[in-house]
Amino acid sequence: MGKQKPTIPKGTRDFGPEQMAKRTYILETIKTVYKKYGFQNLETPTMENLSVLTGKYGDEGDQLLFKIVNSGDYLKKVKAEDLEKGAKIMLPKISEKGLRYDLTVPFARYVVMNHGNLSFPFKRYQVQPVWRADRPQRGRYREFYQCDADVVGTDSLLCEAEILAMMGEALTNLKVTDHTIKLNNRKVLTGIAEAIGENGKESELCVAIDKLDKIGVDKVNQELVEQRGFTEDAVSKLLPIYEMSGFTEERIEKMKTFLASSEIGLKGISELEEVFNFTKVMGVPTEKVEFDVTLARGLSYYTGAIFEVKVNNANMGSISGGGRYDNLTGVFGVEGLSGVGFSFGVDRIYDVLEELDLYPQSAIETTKVMITNFDNAGRDYCLPLLQKLRTAGISAELYPDNAKMKKQMNFANKKGIGFVVLAWEDEMAQGKFSLKNMETGEQQLLTDEQIIEVLK
Amino acid sequence: MGKQKPTIPKGTRDFGPEQMAKRTYILETIKTVYKKYGFQNLETPTMENLSVLTGKYGDEGDQLLFKIVNSGDYLKKVKAEDLEKGAKIMLPKISEKGLRYDLTVPFARYVVMNHGNLSFPFKRYQVQPVWRADRPQRGRYREFYQCDADVVGTDSLLCEAEILAMMGEALTNLKVTDHTIKLNNRKVLTGIAEAIGENGKESELCVAIDKLDKIGVDKVNQELVEQRGFTEDAVSKLLPIYEMSGFTEERIEKMKTFLASSEIGLKGISELEEVFNFTKVMGVPTEKVEFDVTLARGLSYYTGAIFEVKVNNANMGSISGGGRYDNLTGVFGVEGLSGVGFSFGVDRIYDVLEELDLYPQSAIETTKVMITNFDNAGRDYCLPLLQKLRTAGISAELYPDNAKMKKQMNFANKKGIGFVVLAWEDEMAQGKFSLKNMETGEQQLLTDEQIIEVLK
Repeated sequence: MGKQKPTIPKGTRDFGPEQMAKRTYILETIKTVYKKYGFQNLETPTMENLSVLTGKYGDEGDQLLFKIVNSGDYLKKVKAEDLEKGAKIMLPKISEKGLRYDLTVPFARYVVMNHGNLSFPFKRYQVQPVWRADRPQRGRYREFYQCDADVVGTDSLLCEAEILAMMGEALTNLKVTDHTIKLNNRKVLTGIAEAIGENGKESELCVAIDKLDKIGVDKVNQELVEQRGFTEDAVSKLLPIYEMSGFTEERIEKMKTFLASSEIGLKGISELEEVFNFTKVMGVPTEKVEFDVTLARGLSYYTGAIFEVKVNNANMGSISGGGRYDNLTGVFGVEGLSGVGFSFGVDRIYDVLEELDLYPQSAIETTKVMITNFDNAGRDYCLPLLQKLRTAGISAELYPDNAKMKKQMNFANKKGIGFVVLAWEDEMAQGKFSLKNMETGEQQLLTDEQIIEVLK
Repeated sequence: MGKQKPTIPKGTRDFGPEQMAKRTYILETIKTVYKKYGFQNLETPTMENLSVLTGKYGDEGDQLLFKIVNSGDYLKKVKAEDLEKGAKIMLPKISEKGLRYDLTVPFARYVVMNHGNLSFPFKRYQVQPVWRADRPQRGRYREFYQCDADVVGTDSLLCEAEILAMMGEALTNLKVTDHTIKLNNRKVLTGIAEAIGENGKESELCVAIDKLDKIGVDKVNQELVEQRGFTEDAVSKLLPIYEMSGFTEERIEKMKTFLASSEIGLKGISELEEVFNFTKVMGVPTEKVEFDVTLARGLSYYTGAIFEVKVNNANMGSISGGGRYDNLTGVFGVEGLSGVGFSFGVDRIYDVLEELDLYPQSAIETTKVMITNFDNAGRDYCLPLLQKLRTAGISAELYPDNAKMKKQMNFANKKGIGFVVLAWEDEMAQGKFSLKNMETGEQQLLTDEQIIEVLK
């Protein structure tokens, strides 16, 4: 039993040294940008009370929550008849906690619980795993990291401009230069519904338009008419929306005409103009930012700006997204806190950097130098150097056992170690060491101080 | 219902910005040392199959595992009679996964699953939370971080010497200079049992001796005789052990005499001598390392070295511990892999640094500079500076709304921001800015480039 080969739960992953080095590179690059823009780190517990989690993600989300069996005698509240009533009725009696499903609800919960002590606007970033009991498939995991930054407690559109800047800067620092940052505004979508005479149906419109990239114009129109009750006339008026082209300024002018009859639509356009204006004054590059009037994203809680980022030269969906929501904490009884935020998809960015071969050498380097160990005399000769290298801040290791040259070289190669130190009688007689560059094969006879100089 | 003030599960914690900054400082300091010694990062999933976890931590440990309710219809394997049989019988039918209880078992599981691909000796560090359904109390949480480093696949005593070096270096870097690193060897404890004529009873001896600090010599002796079946004669022979004093070399000589009749005991002493010798040759400072012949630690799986670290000038138990275990992966069917490792207690180190006021300014600093926002003209005047600061690598934020001076200054103070930029008509007329040092109150009139110079 205990001796059978162990496994890990489906949809979960181990991250070995190379993956961790690459993931750390991505996360540190992103966190550095977050911090530079004044965001502060928050971590919330893995477990939340189910009273906090349920009802926040829709019925499907509730199903996908991982629930924890109560500690101790978890059956103490269960009666025989509960079993007959089925899993759903019985669940609250055996489980009161669940695993974090996203970072937004715990953030809202934190803000409410610490409302009196926080200074608003509160800028927080949070980089932690979340769990969903989804069917695992390629690129979809049951445990995955989210990487959020949100500002709560202001409706200043400066925040939107800063988010455009942060998205661009993080991706530039990751060398993902060929990307497009799409920007829209929920009010524009509401305005479109009004302008085509389908007032109040922006949600249905959003759900359908959200599929535009996947199923195309005809099927979206068909869905709007057949499943969502739009008139043929209304749908025909959407053509200028589908055919929208040109630079941002041009699109904005076209939309002002299209939305002339919709007050809220024009409000959305004016917000967009202000955001673009802020980026200009700030000196944020905007050539990669595109006003995409059809950008809706699935989630319906956005009330203002909507963001999405795609990589143009990689085979991958959006790698980042976000938006403004007017009532983050209302569900927990604190009204009137507007927030805007976004998130990077770490797993997708990881795959993009793999596909485009964008990891720098420094991201995958492990120990800088390994000292070989052929016999005890050589080992003891090298031990002081080992510690001198570390004192100089150079990562170093000594192969811990006496072993054959080939074995040790293979080890160094496999671990991705850049340099190897060797010392036989010749070197020892001269008080020196041979330093071998594992990439070029070049070998130099050096003193300990020269080695430190070379490796620093 | 949904509007009542939300709570977090007992025994769990939110870590707000200041706590996260301090925790990150501790963890980064420790990780930097781990990496410098050639250890590589590993992360394993939060959930493990219960078949991996159960039976590894004793009966009590099994009780303390957090279990996850199976997804979907979790009752499908349950029959009415199972409910009567009770919680323990029913559990395996509704739960197949649990939360990670420590980092050692997942590490062993990883090594076994990746045995063919890993190069040994494999040095890994792992910094992740673990969960235990323990009764929460002061300093004991249900979710807490562990911070492990282990080498597996070699029995070289160099590893023990390196662990002594790493413990000392990490604590020195954290400015916890007044500490003692205690070192012992399980074989010495085995030898003591032999030397007093209680062969094979080292486990009982360890359990009792482990309480020496807490309950004193008399009670330990009483426990040995009354509860663990040691003879009065055997216990009386322990006196030189309890009274052990002097420097390491002296203690080693005394123990050679005491253990003269025990082969395994002398083996333990010779291992200790070799470890001390390696530290000397490496140039690792050892004045804080103490051979403590009574050091046993609770866990009985150590087979060689045993480590423990205490801070002398703080009111706190051990902040680090570890040891060598000869058969890490045997429980999963892979025999013969010896390992040695240790762990830092992050929560305890956090409290020690608080108590001794050892956090450097850089660890608690947030945004370096905030730009004030009194009106739109001043705001737009400052926006280019905001982005120039960030481009220069300086963390900066603009207060996003027009607001009163006092409110903005309070905000900056509360967030721990070091500098504030102000620009009224005077400054704008000169193309300059006022830079206020929030600590000294000093204010300077500067150009944007001078500000960058000052803040860099």
